[in-house]
Amino acid sequence: MYHTRGIARLLELTPVAESVLRADLLAAQHELRKQGAGPVLVVLAGPETADRGDTANELNAWMDPRWLKTWAWGEPSDEERERPWFWRYWRALPPRGLVALYLSGWYGPVIRDFAERRSGKRAFERQVREINRFERAMTDDGAVVVKIWLHVDLETQRERLKALEADPLRRWRADADQWRRLQSHDAVVRVWKRAANLTDSPAAPWRVIDRSDAKSPMTGVATAVRDAIRQALNRASAPVPAAPASPPAAASPVKHRLSALDLTRTVSKRRALVDLERHQGRLYEAQRLARERGISTIAVFEGWDASGKGGAVRRCTAALDARYFHIIPIAAPTDEELAHHYLWRFWRHIGRAGHVTIFDRSWYGRVLVERVEKLARPDEWQRAYDEINDFEEQLTDHGVVVVKFWLHVSRDEQLDRFRKREETTHKQWKITDEDWRNRNKWDAYADAVNEMVDRTSTRRAPWTLVEGNDKRYARVKVVKTLADRIRRALKRR
Amino acid sequence: MYHTRGIARLLELTPVAESVLRADLLAAQHELRKQGAGPVLVVLAGPETADRGDTANELNAWMDPRWLKTWAWGEPSDEERERPWFWRYWRALPPRGLVALYLSGWYGPVIRDFAERRSGKRAFERQVREINRFERAMTDDGAVVVKIWLHVDLETQRERLKALEADPLRRWRADADQWRRLQSHDAVVRVWKRAANLTDSPAAPWRVIDRSDAKSPMTGVATAVRDAIRQALNRASAPVPAAPASPPAAASPVKHRLSALDLTRTVSKRRALVDLERHQGRLYEAQRLARERGISTIAVFEGWDASGKGGAVRRCTAALDARYFHIIPIAAPTDEELAHHYLWRFWRHIGRAGHVTIFDRSWYGRVLVERVEKLARPDEWQRAYDEINDFEEQLTDHGVVVVKFWLHVSRDEQLDRFRKREETTHKQWKITDEDWRNRNKWDAYADAVNEMVDRTSTRRAPWTLVEGNDKRYARVKVVKTLADRIRRALKRR
Repeated sequence: MYHTRGIARLLELTPVAESVLRADLLAAQHELRKQGAGPVLVVLAGPETADRGDTANELNAWMDPRWLKTWAWGEPSDEERERPWFWRYWRALPPRGLVALYLSGWYGPVIRDFAERRSGKRAFERQVREINRFERAMTDDGAVVVKIWLHVDLETQRERLKALEADPLRRWRADADQWRRLQSHDAVVRVWKRAANLTDSPAAPWRVIDRSDAKSPMTGVATAVRDAIRQALNRASAPVPAAPASPPAAASPVKHRLSALDLTRTVSKRRALVDLERHQGRLYEAQRLARERGISTIAVFEGWDASGKGGAVRRCTAALDARYFHIIPIAAPTDEELAHHYLWRFWRHIGRAGHVTIFDRSWYGRVLVERVEKLARPDEWQRAYDEINDFEEQLTDHGVVVVKFWLHVSRDEQLDRFRKREETTHKQWKITDEDWRNRNKWDAYADAVNEMVDRTSTRRAPWTLVEGNDKRYARVKVVKTLADRIRRALKRR
Repeated sequence: MYHTRGIARLLELTPVAESVLRADLLAAQHELRKQGAGPVLVVLAGPETADRGDTANELNAWMDPRWLKTWAWGEPSDEERERPWFWRYWRALPPRGLVALYLSGWYGPVIRDFAERRSGKRAFERQVREINRFERAMTDDGAVVVKIWLHVDLETQRERLKALEADPLRRWRADADQWRRLQSHDAVVRVWKRAANLTDSPAAPWRVIDRSDAKSPMTGVATAVRDAIRQALNRASAPVPAAPASPPAAASPVKHRLSALDLTRTVSKRRALVDLERHQGRLYEAQRLARERGISTIAVFEGWDASGKGGAVRRCTAALDARYFHIIPIAAPTDEELAHHYLWRFWRHIGRAGHVTIFDRSWYGRVLVERVEKLARPDEWQRAYDEINDFEEQLTDHGVVVVKFWLHVSRDEQLDRFRKREETTHKQWKITDEDWRNRNKWDAYADAVNEMVDRTSTRRAPWTLVEGNDKRYARVKVVKTLADRIRRALKRR
C-alpha cells in the first residue's frame, strides 16, 4: 500500500513545463535564504538501486548548489560511534535559510538493519519513535521536513542492472553488492512501508515517486522540494501562533519540591573534609574505570546565582583527570547557534567515549531564563520539556550517565553572598547588575524551577536537588552523587 | 643543555607565597576573559613519566576550570587521519579570552615518532618548520604561546615507578609501557632538545621546570602561565603596531599578470558544448578514482563580481557526485569565527578523504576585500600571504589537490553584466549596491589580485587565471583544469 495520495498529488503537476518548474524552484530557494526561513530538510530514500545519487546530482544541477547541502553517510566514523546514533544527523542540520538533502538520512540504518535482521522489532520501533520526535522537534521549530521514496519495481531494477553490466564504462557500478541488495528489495520495501506508516504526518509527510517507467523522477522531486520551501516561507510569514493558555500556576505539591528542602542541613568542617576526600577518591576511581570502558558522563549544573555552582564544579574536577573532562560554560548563543534549533549547540559538545562533559548551565536555560525573561515564546518553552526528555533519553540509551544538579539556597542566603562578593575585591567580577535583577524575579524563577524538576526528572536522568546554604554540605553531596551515579552505571554493564 | 635561562627565571619566583600566586593567576585569567585578549596556548611537555596529567589536574584546580580547556590526544581518530596532521590542533584552538592547555600538543607525535625512529630527519625537520609557522601565525594574531618542559631525571623516574608498583591502589599505572618508555627517555630528551632549539623564540618560548626534587612543579607552571596571560593582556592594550611602510605599489611586471590575459578568447557554442561534455566526463571519472583512493580536492573560486563564478561552479558540480562534494559559500564571518584566527573558519570545513570541497570565495578574502576595504590592518593582510602558503602547503603535503581559479572579466564586460542583471527579474537578487561600490574600487582590487597571484601561486597550488569575457570559454577552461589537476594527482601515486 503506497501513499497514493502523495503520488497523485505529484503526478498531477507533471504537465507544468520543466523550465517553469526550475525557475520556480530556484526563486523559492533564494527567497528562503533571503528570509532566513526554514530550514528545509529533504530525505531522499528508496531501494539501493533507485539511483538516489543521480537524483541528488540532478537536483543540485536544478538548484543553486551553494545553498543546498547534500549529505550521504557510509559506516559511522569512530567519532560518530562514540555518540548517540542521532549525533551525526544533528551535526548535519542546516541553519535557517538552507535546504539540506539527505540520501536515506536517518531512515537508512533503521530500515537496512531491520530488513537485514540485524535489529529486532523493539529496536526498530524505538528508533522510529526517536525519528518522530526528532522530526517533530524540527518542524515545531520552523523547519519543513519532506521525505521522498523513489519507487522502482523489481523488474525494472533487474533490467537496469543488466544494462549496466553490458556498459563497459559503467560496469563497475553493477557489483555483487548490487545483486545481493536486489534480493532484499522486497524486505526493504516492506520495512520502509512499515516505517512510513509510522512516520507519515502532515508536518513531515512521505511522498512516493514512482520512477519505474518515468524517464526521470525530477519533476516529482523538484515539485516536492519547491512545495516544501514554499511551506517554509508561508510558515515564516504566518503570525506567531497564539500562545496556548498557560497551564495553571504550579500547584502546591509541585511547589513543595524546593520548599521541602531542608536548608538547615550542615556538616562540620572536619567531617566535610573527610567525606569530600573519600568521595573524591571514589569519583576518581569510578571515572577511571568508566573511561576504560568507554562510558561517558554528562553532568549538568543549574542553580541560583551565587548558589555555589562554580565551587561544586571545582570539587568534582579536582577528582577528575583533566585530559578527560571538559567544562562547557553556557553563555548567550552565538549567531551561528541562533540560526539552528536551540538544542543544536548542546549536541555539538557531546564528548567522546569515556569523557566527562560538565555543563555550567545548560539546555535548561530554555525553561528557566528564556521562560522568565520571555526570550522564548510560551509554546517554545512549553514543548521544550518533551524535547529535553527526548534528548536526554537518547543520551542514556547510548549508555551516557546523565547527572543533573540544582543548587538551592534561600533568598536570604543569596543576599548575604551577594553582599560579601561586593565587599571582596577579587570576587567583584562575580557579581553584576544582572544578578540583582534576576533576584527580583525570585518567585517567577522558583515556579520555573519547580516545573522543570517536575517535568524532566526521569528515572534514568533524575534531578538531584542540593541543599546549598551550607557550601560544604552541598559540595560533598554533589561529589558523592556524581560518584554514586557513575559507579551504578559500571555495575549495570 | 637545558635552557637554564628559563629555569632560572622560574625558580627565582618560588619564594612568592603560593596563595598570592594563585590569586594573581586567577585574577589574570578573569581579566583575560573580560577583555577577550589572547588566547593563551600552553604546551605542557616532558618525558612520559613526568606526570603531565597530574600537573594539568593541579592547574585546573588552581585556575577557573571553566575558562581553561585541557586537551590531550591519543591515536588520531579516522576523521583526523583523513586531514592534514595539524587539523586536530586547529580544531582545538580556543577563542580569544581563553587559556588552552595542551598535553604534549603538536610536539607529541613529532618527538615520539622521531625518538622511536618511526620518522626520519627530513620529516622531523619539516614538522618542526610547520610548528614554527603555526606558532608564528598564532602569536602574530595576538595569541601568546608558552611551552613548558617538565624535566625529571632518569633516576627519579625509576624510583617513582618502583614506588608506584609498591602501591596497590596505583599499581595499574606502572604498566609495562611505562618501563618501556623509560628506556627511550634519553632519546626523547635528546629529540626534544633538538626540537626546542629550533622552536624557541621570544614570542613562543620554552620554559624548563625541573621537578626531579621539587615536591610539585606548580609554582613554576603557574608562574609561567600567569606571565603568559599578563603578556597577552599587555599586547591587547598596546597600541596597534604602526603599519610597516607599505611595499611599493606592484610594479609593472606584476601588473601584467591580469592585463596579459587575452580576454578576446572565445569559443563557438557548438564547440563549447562538445568540449564541456568531454571534460565533464573526464572530471567525473577522475573524481571517481580519486574518491576510491581517498584523494581529496579543494577548489577555490575567486573573481570579479559577475565574472561567472556561480556558473563555473555549477558546470563542475554537474560532473560530480553530490554525495561527495560540498560547496562552502564564504560570507561575513560569524562571531564565533571572529573570535578565532581568521584561518580557523576554513580549517573547520576541510572535508573527509576523497571529497571535493569547493570554496565560493575563500581565505583569499583576507588579501582582497579585507585589504581593499581596510577590514584588516596592513600588517595583518601582509603576513597573510605566508600564512596562506603555509596552510595550502599543509594541504598539499597531505595529498590534497588544491586548485585555485581567478575569473577575470574586463571592466566593460562587468558593466554589461550588471545592467543585464538589473533588467532580468529573476536575476535581480544577484546585483546589490555593494556590487556597484566594489566596481568603483576596480584599480585597488586589481592591484590586490596581482599581488595575491604573484605571492601565492606555488608549484603545488598554482593559480589558474581564467579569461572570462566569454562565459563558455571560461567554463570549459575551469572544468578542464579541475579534471587535469585531479588526473595528474592520480598519476603521481
